[in-house]
Amino acid sequence: MGVIVQKFGGTSVADPQKIHNVAKAVIREKENGNDVVVVVSAMGHTTDHLIKLAKEVTSQPDSREMDMLLSTGEQVSIALLAMAIQAQGYKAVSMNGQQVGIVTECIHSRARIVDIKTEKLQKKISEGNIIVVAGFQGVTPDGEITTLGRGGSDTSAVAIAAALKADRCDIYTDVEGVYATDPRIVPNVQKAETISYEEMLELARVGANVLHPRSVETAKQFNVPLRVRSSFKLDNLGTLIIGVDNMEIYKPVAGVAADSSQIRILLSELPDIPGTAAKVFGSLAKNNISVDMIIQSLASNGTNSIAFTIDADDFDGALKVLDEVKAELKAGEVLIDKDIAKVSIVGAGMVDRPGIAADMFRSLADNNINIKMISTSEIKISCLVEKENAKNAIKALCKEFELESTESADVKGDLPDV
Amino acid sequence: MGVIVQKFGGTSVADPQKIHNVAKAVIREKENGNDVVVVVSAMGHTTDHLIKLAKEVTSQPDSREMDMLLSTGEQVSIALLAMAIQAQGYKAVSMNGQQVGIVTECIHSRARIVDIKTEKLQKKISEGNIIVVAGFQGVTPDGEITTLGRGGSDTSAVAIAAALKADRCDIYTDVEGVYATDPRIVPNVQKAETISYEEMLELARVGANVLHPRSVETAKQFNVPLRVRSSFKLDNLGTLIIGVDNMEIYKPVAGVAADSSQIRILLSELPDIPGTAAKVFGSLAKNNISVDMIIQSLASNGTNSIAFTIDADDFDGALKVLDEVKAELKAGEVLIDKDIAKVSIVGAGMVDRPGIAADMFRSLADNNINIKMISTSEIKISCLVEKENAKNAIKALCKEFELESTESADVKGDLPDV
Repeated sequence: MGVIVQKFGGTSVADPQKIHNVAKAVIREKENGNDVVVVVSAMGHTTDHLIKLAKEVTSQPDSREMDMLLSTGEQVSIALLAMAIQAQGYKAVSMNGQQVGIVTECIHSRARIVDIKTEKLQKKISEGNIIVVAGFQGVTPDGEITTLGRGGSDTSAVAIAAALKADRCDIYTDVEGVYATDPRIVPNVQKAETISYEEMLELARVGANVLHPRSVETAKQFNVPLRVRSSFKLDNLGTLIIGVDNMEIYKPVAGVAADSSQIRILLSELPDIPGTAAKVFGSLAKNNISVDMIIQSLASNGTNSIAFTIDADDFDGALKVLDEVKAELKAGEVLIDKDIAKVSIVGAGMVDRPGIAADMFRSLADNNINIKMISTSEIKISCLVEKENAKNAIKALCKEFELESTESADVKGDLPDV
Repeated sequence: MGVIVQKFGGTSVADPQKIHNVAKAVIREKENGNDVVVVVSAMGHTTDHLIKLAKEVTSQPDSREMDMLLSTGEQVSIALLAMAIQAQGYKAVSMNGQQVGIVTECIHSRARIVDIKTEKLQKKISEGNIIVVAGFQGVTPDGEITTLGRGGSDTSAVAIAAALKADRCDIYTDVEGVYATDPRIVPNVQKAETISYEEMLELARVGANVLHPRSVETAKQFNVPLRVRSSFKLDNLGTLIIGVDNMEIYKPVAGVAADSSQIRILLSELPDIPGTAAKVFGSLAKNNISVDMIIQSLASNGTNSIAFTIDADDFDGALKVLDEVKAELKAGEVLIDKDIAKVSIVGAGMVDRPGIAADMFRSLADNNINIKMISTSEIKISCLVEKENAKNAIKALCKEFELESTESADVKGDLPDV
């Protein structure tokens, strides 16, 4: 008999009928002989509705009061799910962030978990209850209500699984697992049976939206086996995410992803003196703007040009900073390129196998896709390409690194904008 | 500089515009130089909506989970009101039942307050904050969320006022104060400037709906001056409810009320032997049915008849019990009279003045109103009359005891069904 932590998102608990379906999935795991803790998000559009209410009261709501407001969303879900489980004849008890003892730092709207006091949780489990926990929320040592920000409910589930030394944390979602790339682009893409935390992290960072990197980081830190699986096909085991040490790696590349939310900026005719790059990136950093890929090149006239990418959301802020920097350094122009996409291959297996980068570049070249910038990390290689080439690049790389399967994935939804 | 506790009900915070109006009333009291704690209920129909959701999940929701669910309603209101106060440039902080330290017994859906831990509340006040507290809810010593049942938010406000030794607790409502009777029946009825806890309690018990008796009882116990006043006319001071010792009493009768929710039951031909009445009322009590007025009379044939009144809600239960009692005691008939109303006069001043009862009976007789039963307490006299005579009885008694004023009350709404 083990401990299983389950997590269901807002669409899975959007109405009473869906809540009953979740109750069935929970009871199924209990009937397997496990102790079950289930973490849920707020119902459907509840959070959006609450944010709208706050905006009607004031254009700049205080973050402490926003946390007080938004945390009610999950509290409604847990009460209703506990009732649904009880209605099937099982013992259940709901616990909000404060009751379950999810202690966070006192930073409202994006608090990090610092501790989980499991005494009360353990006691309720030992009394035979299925525990229904409010995701996304915690409490400071002073008793202030906090929320965890993006990916919060996934992180709540993983952190609770770590604290309880659970056998597994199952993240139920609307996809059947982790695919090597978006099945809406490559319909016959392989679904991974297992993938490592490190690969999942890199995939999440370069555009795969299955799990927020934060929850994967927490799982990696505490070595919690994570399973991404379908809310609709309970017999499907999905993808297991575990430590790389526990895996036999057959393939050098586990996944391919594209991120089209970046913008390339080129600063030309910079003086070739020490401190120029530091000035540019120091000014951006001071304004909280993260830079991704960077290339510096020396022109024939003895000046430098620096090209880099930033997130599209930071564009207006970056432009303001760079105009000041340009004036100060007496630089040439600030050139913008919005029609780009970053295509990445990720794989723990590439560490020991030289030539993967060369294979990637050749494959893109064979498909007439021009590479504008390149960056690499230990288990990832990213190439900046024209946005219109992104889908073809993904298809070519899935073929190149044998990520296709014999059957099509069962996926709905529109093609993503890459 | 004093401490004022204010309470606003659900209709006063039903939408963002109304919440801004409440914020103005709160800030006004702060500008008077007082520390302010404001207690609010859930917005408009929020509680009804949540109950409906629960009923869609299960026909018999668990009371612990209902408290978890319903307590979110006030938590939404306090966050939004705190935001609205902050938007006017004042410091405000919201606190739910757990944070404010409203400790209750562990009886879900109708818990009683056992303690209020004011340390945190005092600290936030001393930092210059207006405190916005969730009414209707508390927490057990084990950290379980409870709700206080009917009249809960009024009771929260009074209990906090008692714990803080507040100068006053202002209950804002849609009427301008406490009237000697329902102004929809007697438009030129007097509004009381002051009334005693005892009188208010008796009036509440006999049908006046301004305050729940529970909040008045708490105010009386801790000697908290209570003010009932209008949310819409902030300059109007309403009615102050204080201890009878602090009052100068000019009139023997403070108010007249009618309760038409009772049913009269007559049990005929009961054996005139000891234990008969005990059998009848013991059986009713065992089934949790409260009896109000009682008359026992001896018939010429040596049998007794017992007449009494019960609440209409208990009618079906009572009938079942009485059929069994009738069979056991070999009694005659169970006769029902639903067309009755209990008309009461209440006044702390009647204690020292004999003849008030006689004045009441004569006044009713002069108006051709027949009295079916009579009951009295120290500061109350009640007469059971035909339902169709109730309004005339109220008018006659207001005239008799000089409870009319020269001006009409400003009251909207339909005539009550008395």
